[in-house]
Amino acid sequence: MIIVPKNIVTVDSKDRILKNHFIEIENGRIISIKKNDEKYFLKNKQRVLRFDDLTLIPGFVQTHIHLCQTLFRGLADDLELLDWLQLRIFPYENAHNKNSLLASVRLGLNELLLGGTTTLLDMGTLRHQEVVFEELQNSGLRAIAGKCLIDENDLFPQFKSDTKSELEDIYQLAKTFHNTSNGKIKYGFAPRFVLSCSEKLLKESFEMKKDFTGSLYHTHSSENKDELAEIKRRHKKANIEYFDSIGVVDDHSVLAHCIHVDEKETELLRKKKIRVAHCPSSNLKLGSGIANIPKYLKKGISVSLGADGAPGNNNLSIFNEMRLAALIQKPIHGAKAMDAKTVFKLATIKGAEALHLQNEIGSIEVGKKADLTLLDLTSNTHSLSDSDDSIYSDIVYASSANSVNSVMIEGEWKVLNKKSLLYDQTELNQNSKAELKKLLNRVKK
Amino acid sequence: MIIVPKNIVTVDSKDRILKNHFIEIENGRIISIKKNDEKYFLKNKQRVLRFDDLTLIPGFVQTHIHLCQTLFRGLADDLELLDWLQLRIFPYENAHNKNSLLASVRLGLNELLLGGTTTLLDMGTLRHQEVVFEELQNSGLRAIAGKCLIDENDLFPQFKSDTKSELEDIYQLAKTFHNTSNGKIKYGFAPRFVLSCSEKLLKESFEMKKDFTGSLYHTHSSENKDELAEIKRRHKKANIEYFDSIGVVDDHSVLAHCIHVDEKETELLRKKKIRVAHCPSSNLKLGSGIANIPKYLKKGISVSLGADGAPGNNNLSIFNEMRLAALIQKPIHGAKAMDAKTVFKLATIKGAEALHLQNEIGSIEVGKKADLTLLDLTSNTHSLSDSDDSIYSDIVYASSANSVNSVMIEGEWKVLNKKSLLYDQTELNQNSKAELKKLLNRVKK
Repeated sequence: MIIVPKNIVTVDSKDRILKNHFIEIENGRIISIKKNDEKYFLKNKQRVLRFDDLTLIPGFVQTHIHLCQTLFRGLADDLELLDWLQLRIFPYENAHNKNSLLASVRLGLNELLLGGTTTLLDMGTLRHQEVVFEELQNSGLRAIAGKCLIDENDLFPQFKSDTKSELEDIYQLAKTFHNTSNGKIKYGFAPRFVLSCSEKLLKESFEMKKDFTGSLYHTHSSENKDELAEIKRRHKKANIEYFDSIGVVDDHSVLAHCIHVDEKETELLRKKKIRVAHCPSSNLKLGSGIANIPKYLKKGISVSLGADGAPGNNNLSIFNEMRLAALIQKPIHGAKAMDAKTVFKLATIKGAEALHLQNEIGSIEVGKKADLTLLDLTSNTHSLSDSDDSIYSDIVYASSANSVNSVMIEGEWKVLNKKSLLYDQTELNQNSKAELKKLLNRVKK
Repeated sequence: MIIVPKNIVTVDSKDRILKNHFIEIENGRIISIKKNDEKYFLKNKQRVLRFDDLTLIPGFVQTHIHLCQTLFRGLADDLELLDWLQLRIFPYENAHNKNSLLASVRLGLNELLLGGTTTLLDMGTLRHQEVVFEELQNSGLRAIAGKCLIDENDLFPQFKSDTKSELEDIYQLAKTFHNTSNGKIKYGFAPRFVLSCSEKLLKESFEMKKDFTGSLYHTHSSENKDELAEIKRRHKKANIEYFDSIGVVDDHSVLAHCIHVDEKETELLRKKKIRVAHCPSSNLKLGSGIANIPKYLKKGISVSLGADGAPGNNNLSIFNEMRLAALIQKPIHGAKAMDAKTVFKLATIKGAEALHLQNEIGSIEVGKKADLTLLDLTSNTHSLSDSDDSIYSDIVYASSANSVNSVMIEGEWKVLNKKSLLYDQTELNQNSKAELKKLLNRVKK
């Protein structure tokens, strides 16, 4: 396949923006990036796809998502984290059956795809995790996912399992799903957060990841002040400090949020090469705070972006996260902080690096997988200057998920001309509505 | 005309959300709101318009816009206010001719309409203000607008006029345009900000407003710390305190921003019933800060929303402003602060009240003008619960300008099924591009 866009935002080591260039794809990989060549196009005209008005960018990478929560959008507004979990999210997740979970996952994947995201790190839920994996395989998205581990739960005691069966379950799940779908699916060991996990569960799930090369450890950290006070009370330590003391953080650990982090912990993030998943919408909406991302970046700490779950956002749009990631730091760190290019890279190559996938995805370069998004930056809400400078600004400050025209993963179209090729929107909504209604009835009982 | 939507968010005194109701419009006004009546519909079938999936809301009101800047979107990123003005905005506005200004105004109006905004308070520019008014009349939007007054300019000395001709000009403009277009167009006296206005200009333009009943006084205040330091140096007073000392603030004064405001000034805002126009995107993007909106609301101070100008935002979407107005306060004031319903009202009835138009617009009630927006809240990014509670959340947290389906002003369709009936998008963009290119060449000379 030969794709001829208006321009290509490569996100390569030179941050090149190419005009009058095309890319050629074979077996899901980019095999060449060359200057437009009309003779070559004529010779290969059956393989040529022209997108004269569209900008080609790497597919977005989101490093913290809860697909299982998509069904709960709009049902948990204006609450702080611990109330949000106790009164809404835990009861709702606890009421999931396979059908409602499947509906939630599909709804989330469809939104992510239509918004240009091609890779995600998902935190699953306590039960029926195989449903998440099977739908990920079915969808063809690139994903690292894992059953959410909970063996302690003071907030909502029904919603937990026991340590032994948790560990047995995830070993089986990892054996079954890690490195499937031509390597697109990987396992991510996912203890929920300190307050819902025994030390044994945290440690043994971390150990288990060593049996599965390329797998990750994915949890929440340092999100909310009440949460941190309780961690301090239980463990006499700050959150990341506690993780380090029990040996569960390294360069394959992704910590979502990292808002309230002291100097010592910042140094741990740096030294241990821990990955920070920054979720600005959810951090604001739950009243949690603003992570000091400019400081992390200055210290060379890995930062990438995620929309978290729909009820704390209320979208799964990387465009909302990019715009906010830029805007919220400026009153604190000055208007030059978090410029558009820096932020765009957090959502692409830095996301790939966070997941150790930077050799496969995150930029448009020969040899990389063809995970690609085509954007329309020519609408009435974009810049008219047609300068290279304004492309990053247009993407980060002026675009929305509605700017996404088409999306491809490993050379396969998933969205074409704003239409999802995976799911029928009407069917999806009808089914999801019915499943939500049944779930809310189960919650009431 | 009879409009039958899925539901009606009335924003009336009881905040009613009506299902199975229709509204009837005659001569641009809402003459009845009643329960659906199929017999009546059959009898009047040529007048019935059904929107079975759409939610009817009052047209949005934005109380701080710079239409003249729309052309400059993406050309002034990552800068603080005074640099932003000196290096980009003043030179660009200074280079406007009638054609480029017209292109900018059209581009802005089209974006506002497509995003559901039906009323705006615009700060014009130094020259060719008649172009803005003529296009406002042509478009049929409801607007209060005025020539931007500048008779001092240390930042960019070419961009100013003299006091006498400024005052003569605005008297003529107000005489020509105030209360035209069936009262839809009103004059707003618009000194730019303290640093670009002599005391005489500030005072005499304020006095002049008394000759034009229903006109407003519209300026910037308390936006940026460097700006405030310079005001203090010149006038030995804080910004609003200075305005009060020269007698230019009352209940017909709209002050954009009001970020850095001390207790004494907060009390002035309250006592003098001054209107605060809150512009969260631009306040963040220029690194200015976060206005204490929850405090203002608690004290009963008038707060409404505006997108400001495209180069400081970079959209003119009320949806971005609503979402941010809610989210940015929560880390400071708690997750319950600025709930979705409160914020939605800032963008509708509170905007109308700020402009003294609450008897005409801002809610859906019998007798009010038919300024209406139809939203599609059934897409894959909205809540599935169909409960009244989730409507405000869907609008504020989960929607974008793309959720707007149709827009009407005083009974006339301006947007229908996502298409602007006023402007041809392709033509608009081509013309705007050409005008921007010429303008940037004039700037270089």
